[in-house]
Amino acid sequence: RSGEPNPVHWRVHCGLTGDFVSCHAVQESLLSSASGFSNYRGILNWCVVMLVSSFAGLEDCLLKPFFFHRYGILVDPIQVVSLFLKDPYSWPAACLIIVSNVFILAALYTERRLAVGTISETTGLILHIFNLSCILVIPAATALTVTSMTSVGGVISLGIYTVLFLKLYSYKDANRWCREIRQAKAKRLTRSYSCESVQTHVSYPGNLTHRDMYYFVFAPTLCYQLNFPRSSRIRKRFLMRRLLEMLFLMQLLVGLIQQWMVPTIQNSMKPFQEMDFSRMVERLLKLAVPNHLIWLIFFYWFFHSSLNFMAELLQFGDREFYRDWWNSETVTYFWANWNIPVHKWCLRHFYKPMLRKGTNKFLAQSAVFLVSAFFHEYLVSIPLRMFRLWAFMGMMAQVPLALFVSRFLNGNYGNAAVWISLIIGQPVAVLMYVHDYYVLHYGSSA
Amino acid sequence: RSGEPNPVHWRVHCGLTGDFVSCHAVQESLLSSASGFSNYRGILNWCVVMLVSSFAGLEDCLLKPFFFHRYGILVDPIQVVSLFLKDPYSWPAACLIIVSNVFILAALYTERRLAVGTISETTGLILHIFNLSCILVIPAATALTVTSMTSVGGVISLGIYTVLFLKLYSYKDANRWCREIRQAKAKRLTRSYSCESVQTHVSYPGNLTHRDMYYFVFAPTLCYQLNFPRSSRIRKRFLMRRLLEMLFLMQLLVGLIQQWMVPTIQNSMKPFQEMDFSRMVERLLKLAVPNHLIWLIFFYWFFHSSLNFMAELLQFGDREFYRDWWNSETVTYFWANWNIPVHKWCLRHFYKPMLRKGTNKFLAQSAVFLVSAFFHEYLVSIPLRMFRLWAFMGMMAQVPLALFVSRFLNGNYGNAAVWISLIIGQPVAVLMYVHDYYVLHYGSSA
Repeated sequence: RSGEPNPVHWRVHCGLTGDFVSCHAVQESLLSSASGFSNYRGILNWCVVMLVSSFAGLEDCLLKPFFFHRYGILVDPIQVVSLFLKDPYSWPAACLIIVSNVFILAALYTERRLAVGTISETTGLILHIFNLSCILVIPAATALTVTSMTSVGGVISLGIYTVLFLKLYSYKDANRWCREIRQAKAKRLTRSYSCESVQTHVSYPGNLTHRDMYYFVFAPTLCYQLNFPRSSRIRKRFLMRRLLEMLFLMQLLVGLIQQWMVPTIQNSMKPFQEMDFSRMVERLLKLAVPNHLIWLIFFYWFFHSSLNFMAELLQFGDREFYRDWWNSETVTYFWANWNIPVHKWCLRHFYKPMLRKGTNKFLAQSAVFLVSAFFHEYLVSIPLRMFRLWAFMGMMAQVPLALFVSRFLNGNYGNAAVWISLIIGQPVAVLMYVHDYYVLHYGSSA
Repeated sequence: RSGEPNPVHWRVHCGLTGDFVSCHAVQESLLSSASGFSNYRGILNWCVVMLVSSFAGLEDCLLKPFFFHRYGILVDPIQVVSLFLKDPYSWPAACLIIVSNVFILAALYTERRLAVGTISETTGLILHIFNLSCILVIPAATALTVTSMTSVGGVISLGIYTVLFLKLYSYKDANRWCREIRQAKAKRLTRSYSCESVQTHVSYPGNLTHRDMYYFVFAPTLCYQLNFPRSSRIRKRFLMRRLLEMLFLMQLLVGLIQQWMVPTIQNSMKPFQEMDFSRMVERLLKLAVPNHLIWLIFFYWFFHSSLNFMAELLQFGDREFYRDWWNSETVTYFWANWNIPVHKWCLRHFYKPMLRKGTNKFLAQSAVFLVSAFFHEYLVSIPLRMFRLWAFMGMMAQVPLALFVSRFLNGNYGNAAVWISLIIGQPVAVLMYVHDYYVLHYGSSA
């Protein structure tokens, strides 16, 4: 056979396999950045496998002998309940959340008046501003004065009120834009655009109903629009998986905070009181790993599981709650992509209106960080009843950090810098607050 | 301004921003598998940051108090040297590697005779088979009989001889194919293909030179071809980075093996001797993490840093030493993509010739695993002077495992199964050999 092959037969083989003539081509290795390859889905699965197995290992080898013998049982349901409830006959956080309906309805009725023209645009604006101010001031005043409000209850109710503030601000703006477009159309005396509104679609002012308002309040977005895109059906398996993730990760978060983070923080109080710098740094790095893992799990729990669960229930179509912030090579890219609902709101209702008014880009960007810093501080200081500006400064420090990273680092180095700033930055702020809280409440006895 | 906007002005804005009318679109979250998104380059950087920081943390918090106090200093250069050298006046592994030139030249001279036709194809084949058999038998015999050969020296020299065996087998095949094509062309009495060979390209038998042969021996590939694709120049920065990676990762590998893996293995000898099953499993899981990390670092060190370094030095163009095995959703995909030089060789010189002879696909695939299992066993048993077939069985177990995974698991579950089989499978084999080695050498004293 090997002596005299059929030429045609051979050429077919050469064409078929190509191996006889050559089997190499000029190409880069996949891990070289020059290759441009970026599919690392498997690495994500690897992280999950390693995390699960090391938690299983921790449970077996570390937690049982270590935590349970040294600190006693730390996953303590009573402790969890006590975070929400100081006085079992007083539920200030729950009451606050129920009261929020008043502000929702106030915004809706103001818009209805504006739509039919019984109040002027200026009066409407004043009413809205009053309503929105109340949304920020009333829960803050409650949290500061009602002593039976716990810190966790305070954070949750203030968080809900902040979300409501952003939603109703967007509601006011979007409805005003609708009125402006309606007026513009009326002036041109044409109805050329009306063919766009199919029967199933609602057009202004048909959207000013309780049903539409409450759909928007519960929908996982901060930006109001008429006729949200909807998914065709509720996928039951998707819903169940998200629900199971929510429940499991909730357990994991509480367990990790109680068993890993709280002991680490407690151990780091002494070096911080004595201002022993080298041991402070050591404690900080020890706190960085649990804090970072908890933040990552929280991110997945909130932005993937919970928001997708809500969206699936409400058949809300737009599931872009985050983009690929894990690839961010600049700090700006991270902030623009990890929290899309807030980013979208800032862009639509704050940044672009500022640009339209002629503000320059850098100033507008800094202003967005300033507002974001204000809300971070609002959500931390008031529930803790302690004004320290660490969160505010942490957010504002992002502006020079962003300039530094985009100026001096790029590609994978920029990405690593973003990760390191996440891993190190957060525990610094956490330790600052915990330290001050500790000094304020237990400092006299120490 | 808000009272009476200019319609044209408004329409420009609507078109420009699109936000006024709608700012949502139906889309899936990126982490949902339905989104099809797979760019997780940042997660790879995250792994590197976390690994580096936890090694730095280990060094500080774990290694110093733990290893150095309990086991004494474990990064021991003398211990490393003793792995290679038993008797300072006898260097059997180095001698073996120098002797390998004899076989390289034997293959070259046989091919030269075949090219000019002074020996027949059959004689040539017999000479090649004799030469290739010597390549496998002589180092094995040396490793088994020369007592001053250490296990590590044995693995390295047998590894080099195995690579040489595969290379010279490919050399023989590729040159035979060239002769067959030459004969086929001669019969057709045309020279239509000769225009293809540009001056710079070499055509058969012009390739049978010492220079070409040694280029192939040092090139990071196992498949011979005429005129390897070449890169245009040596990129000095690329070369330096690969060299630094090689040196640093070499240190890291030796340190990790000495400080983490060896103590873990030593601690697991007692449960294995007593056949205490639950503690055997615990030890196995404890070994799995360091073993897996060492394997990953070894993979990067060998397949990315070292082979790219060699390729850059030799201006060898084809850098595809691995494909995206980390995304593999079946066991078969993993084996076909983690080690491309061997995979390419198996495909070109073993699997495809078998298919051409009419073997069915599954049988041919199993035969490839059988040959691979033989070489794994060859590389482990002979240097340890201990025949146990664990490596052989480990490789052969991949066939039913591959069937199971491809039958019952797919997508991310399949990927997780591949990772788990990697994480768990290897330490089982390692512990088996270490246990048997321990019993054989120290069993009598225990």
